[in-house]
Amino acid sequence: MVKTNPGRFFEDYSVGQVLPHAVPRTVTEGERGLYHALYPARHALYSSDEFARACGLQESPIDDLAAFHVVFGKTVPDISLNAVANLGYAEGRWLLPVYASDTLRSVSEVIGVKQNSNGKTGVVWVRTRGLNQLDEVVMEYVRWVMVRKANPDAPAPETVVPELKKVLEPSDLAIPEGLDFSNYDFGLAGEPHRWGDYEIGETIDHVDGVTVEEAEHMLATRLWQNTAKVHFDLTFRPDGRLIYGGHVISMARTLSFNGLANAQMIVGLNGGAHANPCFAGDTIKAWSEVLDKAETGVPGVGAIRLRLVATKGGEPFALKNEDGRYQPNVLLDLDYWALMPI
Amino acid sequence: MVKTNPGRFFEDYSVGQVLPHAVPRTVTEGERGLYHALYPARHALYSSDEFARACGLQESPIDDLAAFHVVFGKTVPDISLNAVANLGYAEGRWLLPVYASDTLRSVSEVIGVKQNSNGKTGVVWVRTRGLNQLDEVVMEYVRWVMVRKANPDAPAPETVVPELKKVLEPSDLAIPEGLDFSNYDFGLAGEPHRWGDYEIGETIDHVDGVTVEEAEHMLATRLWQNTAKVHFDLTFRPDGRLIYGGHVISMARTLSFNGLANAQMIVGLNGGAHANPCFAGDTIKAWSEVLDKAETGVPGVGAIRLRLVATKGGEPFALKNEDGRYQPNVLLDLDYWALMPI
Amino acid sequence: MVKTNPGRFFEDYSVGQVLPHAVPRTVTEGERGLYHALYPARHALYSSDEFARACGLQESPIDDLAAFHVVFGKTVPDISLNAVANLGYAEGRWLLPVYASDTLRSVSEVIGVKQNSNGKTGVVWVRTRGLNQLDEVVMEYVRWVMVRKANPDAPAPETVVPELKKVLEPSDLAIPEGLDFSNYDFGLAGEPHRWGDYEIGETIDHVDGVTVEEAEHMLATRLWQNTAKVHFDLTFRPDGRLIYGGHVISMARTLSFNGLANAQMIVGLNGGAHANPCFAGDTIKAWSEVLDKAETGVPGVGAIRLRLVATKGGEPFALKNEDGRYQPNVLLDLDYWALMPI
Repeated sequence: MVKTNPGRFFEDYSVGQVLPHAVPRTVTEGERGLYHALYPARHALYSSDEFARACGLQESPIDDLAAFHVVFGKTVPDISLNAVANLGYAEGRWLLPVYASDTLRSVSEVIGVKQNSNGKTGVVWVRTRGLNQLDEVVMEYVRWVMVRKANPDAPAPETVVPELKKVLEPSDLAIPEGLDFSNYDFGLAGEPHRWGDYEIGETIDHVDGVTVEEAEHMLATRLWQNTAKVHFDLTFRPDGRLIYGGHVISMARTLSFNGLANAQMIVGLNGGAHANPCFAGDTIKAWSEVLDKAETGVPGVGAIRLRLVATKGGEPFALKNEDGRYQPNVLLDLDYWALMPI
Repeated sequence: MVKTNPGRFFEDYSVGQVLPHAVPRTVTEGERGLYHALYPARHALYSSDEFARACGLQESPIDDLAAFHVVFGKTVPDISLNAVANLGYAEGRWLLPVYASDTLRSVSEVIGVKQNSNGKTGVVWVRTRGLNQLDEVVMEYVRWVMVRKANPDAPAPETVVPELKKVLEPSDLAIPEGLDFSNYDFGLAGEPHRWGDYEIGETIDHVDGVTVEEAEHMLATRLWQNTAKVHFDLTFRPDGRLIYGGHVISMARTLSFNGLANAQMIVGLNGGAHANPCFAGDTIKAWSEVLDKAETGVPGVGAIRLRLVATKGGEPFALKNEDGRYQPNVLLDLDYWALMPI
Repeated sequence: MVKTNPGRFFEDYSVGQVLPHAVPRTVTEGERGLYHALYPARHALYSSDEFARACGLQESPIDDLAAFHVVFGKTVPDISLNAVANLGYAEGRWLLPVYASDTLRSVSEVIGVKQNSNGKTGVVWVRTRGLNQLDEVVMEYVRWVMVRKANPDAPAPETVVPELKKVLEPSDLAIPEGLDFSNYDFGLAGEPHRWGDYEIGETIDHVDGVTVEEAEHMLATRLWQNTAKVHFDLTFRPDGRLIYGGHVISMARTLSFNGLANAQMIVGLNGGAHANPCFAGDTIKAWSEVLDKAETGVPGVGAIRLRLVATKGGEPFALKNEDGRYQPNVLLDLDYWALMPI
């Protein structure tokens, strides 16, 4: 009997299946330090316990995207080991801050399947939840992937395509208990721009760039216990190890500090596309566009909806060609909600 | 007077010598996080405090091999600074789990010396013990190295070759106090295969591979405070920095998760050979062979003796040529005991 | 309105200005572990909580240079984003050990300005202080940089050149409360040489070398939240990313363990020059010269003033050409005070 994990194929998924993922992970100050070594992370709420306490939290949480990566990484052996493509994200919500010493695990539920017309692949939708040691859901998101069939003759399942929100409503966003920006220190945070200073449609070039290295993206991807071999094994990908899309997300988000230093907490992920692959040697830059703004009902706290685009080369603010396809230098097009002091 | 450490030469060793090594080290969550960034470590007992508690431990220990590297690294300035070759290991035993905030130091005793017939080098055997802040021995092992003589005219010492066990008996293995696999969660651990599912003689190809980078092996080797210049200084090794053998051990062991996810704790090291050197750019893969199985007397806990082979290129399961020499693509041949849920 | 930070130009500084820097940072065991992975750090006081306690401290502090880097990194967006050159350091004093869980922030005061005769640039002197969560000053130093003018027609300010000590007096040095080397364990520390064994004028070749990698210096520089793009963006520096000068300082200081293992604590920075740029692929080595010695009044604790020189290639102990300029292989010339057991 083969002891290694062959991964799941399209015919192995059915709507309603619940997949509890291995391996639980206690996140510590080690992960916190590494996140700041791997990315130019400077958002004050995630850098200083004192700053976080002044905002009503118990201490500085683990970066929201680090929590996402930990939850996501666990799903790889069950969801995307035989995936052909990572097609999209929706309805991502951060429900509780994650602190050092919390232990996270992940569970996914299959919410949609649709065989492709070629009969060789299909699309699988899963809703993944990350839970802490108290079985509280700390975050959840939907993603869909294209997966190969092992047996091309396996019958097509009944098509189920879930209805997903294009954009989370402001009322869908979870504001951490106790969060309070009424004494927010803009000087310590690094920029004077408050929620009221941003206009819908405004674009921001984040200026800074980072040329990425093999060692760095592998350190990051391993830290999240993401085992997909495309990221690690040059004999499997002789043209270059593919950089984990989440590495690009974290790099772009942290680069966006320069211009969005006060977009402190990520609370919603509306959607995202990994437009083109990223390889070591690429120089990642980022720009943002303000898509929407909303009040939250919490004193001092506003929500801002941002498009975050990561690029390699090219000018900022260009996104798609006339035919609607992403330009070849665009790496990422992400749509998220963040919390800002009003 | 020269203030720098010239290292010891063959004539500086005599049987019975006790060498307390510098520098003590407090291991923390920083090391724990780094171990998971440097290696694809996924064994649940070392990833989750909750999982470790469910197995009867106080929390998730530092990885057994990280403890070994810390203990080993301290011996380098006294044992292997002038070593020509690292010849072997024997009688390695992990006696106590190491937890974050423990402080480790190392002491070696010279247990054998044998001058080579060329008169220029000799073999030195040492038994090294790692101790914690309570002066408890957390691990011990024997290794032997070939060391240069500083003065070729120094007289040959009386030959003493220690008697070493080829293989530790199951009764030699220390089972951590309180360890209990009776409620072991195979789902969270990542694989369903229990001790009873493995057969002596069975071989497992661990499938995954990692192409190693200079920055990664140097980060690891420094973290263990191993100062051997062959690993760091390209002007000293113009043909390529030699990767610390322990980096290959940890890489192979963590790759072996895929097929041996439940071989949780390493408790015995029977022997090991660094068959060929490893350099940045090599892609490390691993395969294992079940050499033996034994009961431990502890409810739910079985011992499994494994051969762990690391390779760069080539097919799995090939080890030696007809002349008994290791094939050129074999990096490591390790023989160890691990604990598994029965 | 542009939201990103354009940095300050020469005409934006005036004597007496106080610049509180963003972003505060809680340093943890994550930073501690990373420091030991990034540099061959072996000084026992910073490696072992037990050793630190035996010397009268509460536990092992964060390395003195790590504290410096954290304080320094915060000043980059306000002081050196538009700097042409980092000209010098003076009057650096470490006033309190920094421990894991301390939160640091930085404040600079402008203490001098002098426009250059070309009218396009000027020199700015700042005294920077690092403060902890109790608003205690943990360290301070003066540095001066050459900064561009944004508007060449801006009027020259009145020239103010601060009077700075060439060398700190022994009485300027702060000895941590409780520090006591009377039971100092030279065996655990790694070398037998005490303060009394070093002579003024003595030089030490530290022998070991490290060939530096892109991933490593970027991990380090990001960890200190130093955002200067010259270190990260190869499209901005097509001839090679410039390695942060502090990376060279830490590498040289930790290499100096071999010969100066007992120069435990850095308490004073008299001056320093980054003589030539360092790039990935360079092999850093180091040598030291004993410049002075002094008693401290604290039992068992002596002060030693050291020149620390980092090189890439070339022979040790060569520093300047006959014309007084640094030889091209010299990277760093640092002048500091450290504490040693008498």
